[in-house]
Amino acid sequence: MINEVPMLTNVTNEAASCMQVIKHPDKSEWKSLLARPTFDTSSLNDTVSRILTDIRQEGDAAVLRYGEMFDKAVLKELRVTLPEINEAANLLSEDLKEAIHVAAKNIEKFHVSQKFETKKIETTPGVICWQKAVGIEKVGLYIPGGSAPLFSTVLMLAIPAKIAGCKEIILCTPPDKDGNINPAILYAAKMAGATSIFKVGGVQAIGAMAYGTATVPKVYKIFGPGNQYVMAAKQLVSLRDVAIDMPAGPSEVQVIADETANAAFIAADLLSQAEHGADSQVILTTTSEKVIEQVLSEIQVQLALLPRKEIAEKALKHSKAILLKNNEDIIELTNEYAPEHLIIETADYIQLAQQVVNAGSVFLGNYTPESAGDYASGTNHTLPTNGYAKAYSGVNLDSFIKKITFQEISREGIQNLGKTIEVMAENELLYAHKNAVTLRLK
Amino acid sequence: MINEVPMLTNVTNEAASCMQVIKHPDKSEWKSLLARPTFDTSSLNDTVSRILTDIRQEGDAAVLRYGEMFDKAVLKELRVTLPEINEAANLLSEDLKEAIHVAAKNIEKFHVSQKFETKKIETTPGVICWQKAVGIEKVGLYIPGGSAPLFSTVLMLAIPAKIAGCKEIILCTPPDKDGNINPAILYAAKMAGATSIFKVGGVQAIGAMAYGTATVPKVYKIFGPGNQYVMAAKQLVSLRDVAIDMPAGPSEVQVIADETANAAFIAADLLSQAEHGADSQVILTTTSEKVIEQVLSEIQVQLALLPRKEIAEKALKHSKAILLKNNEDIIELTNEYAPEHLIIETADYIQLAQQVVNAGSVFLGNYTPESAGDYASGTNHTLPTNGYAKAYSGVNLDSFIKKITFQEISREGIQNLGKTIEVMAENELLYAHKNAVTLRLK
Repeated sequence: MINEVPMLTNVTNEAASCMQVIKHPDKSEWKSLLARPTFDTSSLNDTVSRILTDIRQEGDAAVLRYGEMFDKAVLKELRVTLPEINEAANLLSEDLKEAIHVAAKNIEKFHVSQKFETKKIETTPGVICWQKAVGIEKVGLYIPGGSAPLFSTVLMLAIPAKIAGCKEIILCTPPDKDGNINPAILYAAKMAGATSIFKVGGVQAIGAMAYGTATVPKVYKIFGPGNQYVMAAKQLVSLRDVAIDMPAGPSEVQVIADETANAAFIAADLLSQAEHGADSQVILTTTSEKVIEQVLSEIQVQLALLPRKEIAEKALKHSKAILLKNNEDIIELTNEYAPEHLIIETADYIQLAQQVVNAGSVFLGNYTPESAGDYASGTNHTLPTNGYAKAYSGVNLDSFIKKITFQEISREGIQNLGKTIEVMAENELLYAHKNAVTLRLK
Repeated sequence: MINEVPMLTNVTNEAASCMQVIKHPDKSEWKSLLARPTFDTSSLNDTVSRILTDIRQEGDAAVLRYGEMFDKAVLKELRVTLPEINEAANLLSEDLKEAIHVAAKNIEKFHVSQKFETKKIETTPGVICWQKAVGIEKVGLYIPGGSAPLFSTVLMLAIPAKIAGCKEIILCTPPDKDGNINPAILYAAKMAGATSIFKVGGVQAIGAMAYGTATVPKVYKIFGPGNQYVMAAKQLVSLRDVAIDMPAGPSEVQVIADETANAAFIAADLLSQAEHGADSQVILTTTSEKVIEQVLSEIQVQLALLPRKEIAEKALKHSKAILLKNNEDIIELTNEYAPEHLIIETADYIQLAQQVVNAGSVFLGNYTPESAGDYASGTNHTLPTNGYAKAYSGVNLDSFIKKITFQEISREGIQNLGKTIEVMAENELLYAHKNAVTLRLK
């Protein structure tokens, strides 16, 4: 169930459909003030476990059965065929294809720059250690269905997987009732280098990729967003069977603004996040009452024109404009909140950015909207929500590789290091460990 | 329950207390041949959940109560005091202190070399993206108790945490019946830079660090080995409350050897792993029957002299010597097994090493025993077991940092990239995303 945040002191609802305004909250109130509208997926675990067990035991038959039940699609073939993939290009506008190419090039450029270079280190004469980055051989990407085709997420996951050298890049996404996948998803998947695409959605997709079926290969790591059932399934399979990108929660943005910022831009940035879902959260932090007033007023103007007005309104209800007394407090609150997205629209944004230690992706200055990072700046948009930025990075090239360590010790090296190892092994009461060195010293 | 591996064809037990020998197994048998003696911790979840719930609700009182129950220690104070820490140095031999210093220096040198350097990338003129590595502010290290003091693990976790810039480095380890911590652990913890040490073990330690108590601070990520209860607790808290280093399983080694290898060295390496625990697994792979014969015979000789003979014997019972027909098969089997430790003792070890894609840490040549990496070569010994090396790295500097992405777009930059973002947002039906750009293009 959604945990609604308790009412706080100094709270006023400036407009019926707009965010709460909190002025100078006491630090003791920050924690409840910053609480997310989270969803506890453990209540879904029974349902999700049952589906996962069926998929583990029955494979494709269960995948097809649940696909009919949930996606209403009766499929003969789970795998998307080459003609279907090739046809996709004919169904998209030239504008969209061009945009996908531009975004893909930027994403590729930024993620290629993250390639790891091996350095050999001689820690002791004759003892050489190094790391080697190797792409995870088989990865699974989940792209949710629903009202909008998330082809941008296809780019964000498949492009770094390809750069990392992942050999099998499996993509699962639910079909529509007629058994079709949106052509923008197919087009982006082909361009980005997905090796197989399957018409499988929801818990079935996670189960199929975690265990493998006759048709869908088992993968070693699963990436991608999803609804609460998908999140619960990812968590359950991650306990034993497969790695996952990160735990997930509703999307969120925090904006830090001062009077040099443009209230219309800020309002648009807050609404970009609010339109994602009713459970999204947006936070405005500022030292200026005027900024809050202007932004709330701009939100009303812009909100009226949005097709997803109702969703955004719901999100705004658990969203907040927080007036703080100085930048130190703003930075402290930001690092406590650990926002998925942080937009800093202030004159001194560089100085503030240097103090950010907990955030997913940071957008600097008045001309850097979150939507740039969502689509095309080159940074990844799969980011840690729910405060997970305190411990997790967003998806990046590292997410698709593992680093294997190597060590090579010469006869001279073991002479130099041998006694150290013997003494330590002996003190940990591990005499076979010691003996492996003693024999070599002789 | 421990899953015993089913019996296979072509299996002979060369000696009563020694490993199984499997000659030229068919590839269809590899999967069951390579099955680990794993333990399903989900059977412990009820017990572990109850303890965790008590700790979440009662804090220190529950920590003390369970400590009395499991560690038999009646404590007044959970925190190790400064005099206790300082006294530790007086209780250790000079040899051991010197060994700890040498190991620490190598571990430091190798992990410092892993520091991340920010590169700013201009993906499109006016669009600059970069990553910044920031240490996770609060980390918790768990060091198990038991027969041997694992001061080496203290070094392996606290040194990279310090280098990463973690501000709070909390260490929990169970006390003995008299309420004392082994001085080697205290000495290593102080030297490596732990900021607080607590006399808390088992599930209590994981709960205390995951939720925080009046005495033990809440951390954002928990590291370290432990028994099955600790493993179950780490998994449970990782679902919502805190990140963990990686899932864990029994330790294991695979040796690849040819006739240029020294059978006594190989036997010692296999036994080093076998003495870790009855559930350890050791695998010898070779194309030479002679190597198998010689190694098995050496194992008998060395085993007889080991203090931990009984443990090693039990481990050897589910361990295997596998004869394969060529190096291609050896590499294929290795990458399928994905060993935690891989020792390559062959003439052409460099060439073989280049083909390894799934392993935790690799030891090259005849003078590189696993115990070098366990203690002092500089590489980390906290490594992915149970085949997790297919998706996970061992602990390294990355484990203690997260990378925040930044983007800074100029007015010119948004002109260059704006249309791309607008077209993509529109096609994902996210009009507020589009509007955040449109307003800025005006």
